[in-house]
Amino acid sequence: MRVVGAKTPDGVVVGVLSEDGSEVTAFACTSQFWASPDEFLAAGPTGTTYPLAEVTLVPPVLGSARVLCVGLNYLDHVKEGSFKDESLPEVPTLFARWPQSLSSDGAEVPIPSGEDGLDWEGEVVAWVGSRLVDATPEEALAAVVGYSTFNDITSRRAQKQTSQWIMGKNGDRSGPLGPMVPAAEVGDLRDGLTVETRVNGTVVQRSSTAQMIYGVGETLAHISRSFTLNPGDLLATGTPSGVGYSRTPPWLLQPGDVVEVEVERLGILTSHIVDNSHRLNATSA
Amino acid sequence: MRVVGAKTPDGVVVGVLSEDGSEVTAFACTSQFWASPDEFLAAGPTGTTYPLAEVTLVPPVLGSARVLCVGLNYLDHVKEGSFKDESLPEVPTLFARWPQSLSSDGAEVPIPSGEDGLDWEGEVVAWVGSRLVDATPEEALAAVVGYSTFNDITSRRAQKQTSQWIMGKNGDRSGPLGPMVPAAEVGDLRDGLTVETRVNGTVVQRSSTAQMIYGVGETLAHISRSFTLNPGDLLATGTPSGVGYSRTPPWLLQPGDVVEVEVERLGILTSHIVDNSHRLNATSA
Repeated sequence: MRVVGAKTPDGVVVGVLSEDGSEVTAFACTSQFWASPDEFLAAGPTGTTYPLAEVTLVPPVLGSARVLCVGLNYLDHVKEGSFKDESLPEVPTLFARWPQSLSSDGAEVPIPSGEDGLDWEGEVVAWVGSRLVDATPEEALAAVVGYSTFNDITSRRAQKQTSQWIMGKNGDRSGPLGPMVPAAEVGDLRDGLTVETRVNGTVVQRSSTAQMIYGVGETLAHISRSFTLNPGDLLATGTPSGVGYSRTPPWLLQPGDVVEVEVERLGILTSHIVDNSHRLNATSA
Repeated sequence: MRVVGAKTPDGVVVGVLSEDGSEVTAFACTSQFWASPDEFLAAGPTGTTYPLAEVTLVPPVLGSARVLCVGLNYLDHVKEGSFKDESLPEVPTLFARWPQSLSSDGAEVPIPSGEDGLDWEGEVVAWVGSRLVDATPEEALAAVVGYSTFNDITSRRAQKQTSQWIMGKNGDRSGPLGPMVPAAEVGDLRDGLTVETRVNGTVVQRSSTAQMIYGVGETLAHISRSFTLNPGDLLATGTPSGVGYSRTPPWLLQPGDVVEVEVERLGILTSHIVDNSHRLNATSA
């Protein structure tokens, strides 16, 4: 089951994309869906069915959700990056995205002013389905309702300009997010799902989620000790090695490039890189 | 004019608190207000008037807004903190809050599990009123529709556990935010508004916004080169010296403590510190 958001003539809904991708059947509006996601997923969609041509796909995300991203979660990626000479912290390094930076499959992602290009970071997102306060790792993992393919597209110059990374992690439409697949269909990331990123067809990242240092349950439990997680919050679980900026010479995405992230059981997410005029001329971010 | 959010029997609205604080007169619902804030402020509130007893005050903030916070913006605060031996970056160091962490005047702010207490950071927030893409500092400053008193209450242990600060900056209700005062009534922060923080009546911070390193216009222009700012986004402009963790011995807020932040022309913001049971037993964050 592929859960998507859709702008319909009746408003934005969360629904299910049909097998052939030709239509979306609604569960409910976004806030209703995230009030009880487990119940909606168990019952299946019972709302209006819309032909894909009549809707615009959007991430099935609450505007008020929090997107927590693990910065360094694959040992091979730690070794290629700026933090390779520092000892690994006992807890995951987390940074923030606002949902305004998220986009959908097929999105055009602009390169902001002053960046020489954009970098790819293929990864998996976990969706929180229940409220978590001071949870155990087991409780937290049980609260995950689904997973999505994600590309944490990064403006490296802005990311590295100060000690804090968020300016490089919140570019317009820079967080393409695939449909949510229910956790029951995905199983445990510890079993190892293959994550592969391709640029114009060339494989640039290939790893397994079994290589993750901090597990989804452990990370969500850790977060829940600092603040309360709510249904609809997202955890981006980090990227493996093979990003562009650490290559010799560096390789950054340019206008016209096509990036794909493919995760086993979650599908392929395709993004198109465009230039900054797509920001200046847009009517909204 | 003090612009507030209010949960009313008719839904959440943005409105104006009367001079005596006894009632709120609505502009519109939050999303309508932020679609054209300048027009609403110029026209004044024309909606329903609610007695304060019938509403709950909330921040007049969009759930999808972004709260950008300057980390080190007063030289005296840089000198007292962990970054005192590093050279100052050419651009402001920005970190992220999600609006879910914001609360209102009078809020009870819980100390999360594992923290020895909370730290105060009195400061000024600027509200963005127009869309900003690759703006100049002058354009960005002209887009500010108002200012509020803010307390960037911090979990220092979580903030310092990794290189990224967000885990210490997003505790439940940890961002008390006062009413928005229209920019036209406030003037230029460069002229110098006194910012004072008091704990149980003792003055712990006292400075002037004239001491800020990075101005509001410069910072918003800088951000707009990495991503598009939208009406309703917030900039927290940083705190002066006098925070608790850098004192000898450290001084952290404990349950029962009352913190006030007072900013000239913006008013007094009062918060009450409570223990972690207020998270465990809450029905929502």
